[in-house]
Amino acid sequence: MESSGGFYTLKGYSRNENEKLTSSMEDYLEMICRLLQGNEVVRISELAGSLHVKPPSASKMVNNLKDAGYIEFKKYGYIVVTEKGQEAGRYLLHRHKVLHDFLCLLNHSENELEQVEKIEHFIDKTTVDNLELLTEKMREASVFRPRSHPD
Amino acid sequence: MESSGGFYTLKGYSRNENEKLTSSMEDYLEMICRLLQGNEVVRISELAGSLHVKPPSASKMVNNLKDAGYIEFKKYGYIVVTEKGQEAGRYLLHRHKVLHDFLCLLNHSENELEQVEKIEHFIDKTTVDNLELLTEKMREASVFRPRSHPD
Repeated sequence: MESSGGFYTLKGYSRNENEKLTSSMEDYLEMICRLLQGNEVVRISELAGSLHVKPPSASKMVNNLKDAGYIEFKKYGYIVVTEKGQEAGRYLLHRHKVLHDFLCLLNHSENELEQVEKIEHFIDKTTVDNLELLTEKMREASVFRPRSHPD
Repeated sequence: MESSGGFYTLKGYSRNENEKLTSSMEDYLEMICRLLQGNEVVRISELAGSLHVKPPSASKMVNNLKDAGYIEFKKYGYIVVTEKGQEAGRYLLHRHKVLHDFLCLLNHSENELEQVEKIEHFIDKTTVDNLELLTEKMREASVFRPRSHPD
């Protein structure tokens, strides 16, 4: 967004942005690319199952991704990721991994999926790059003794 | 939310939660408490101006905060924060400061307001505590040389 300074509500920030990929589209594209790492093909039904949504919701969002040029449909309803989609998907998976690695190290935990899924849409590339660097430094230097989640 | 594991969309996570304070209510309560740090009293119009929203939107959200017991109205339309609201507000301001300090140090920057406003709703108390501790350690140890935002 154009930075005019000062505070906005979370909703206000969303309105001010003219993103190509919305948070929802990111969730779906990321999952399509994740599923294609382990499978030859992916269909709407598997995608919906993996994201705990109903097939019509997945279908609608996948059509948005198609209209924006990130995926295409092949015969039998298989989803194919375009070059543009692959590039975006690689970044989304990388961003996810960087944030998950950092939060696990920070919180002395093995699963920070929920916080990662909520936060990842909102961190910019500079933050991703620096979190990756910081995580390496934290591992090397061992200066940080985290508190773990209360059980 | 009850952790049943696996991925959800951002929207799915929101639906699964039964939060007392929504992200919007947090934005408003945080700003009311911020304004009351520098002023004796706060009114809807100032609150709306500070958050770049229209007075009717602010009025609606402030009524939600009133219904949930975080604020009350006094004569002349002044907003007064209840004890419950003060406790919650202190935490919101603390969480905001911890995240802002961390991101500024991480990104070698002086203003990370936009990312903070977007992320702060989604980090839990363990993460806030550990980020505060990590920021101290990063300052002490100086092991981390961040990359700054590209100009």
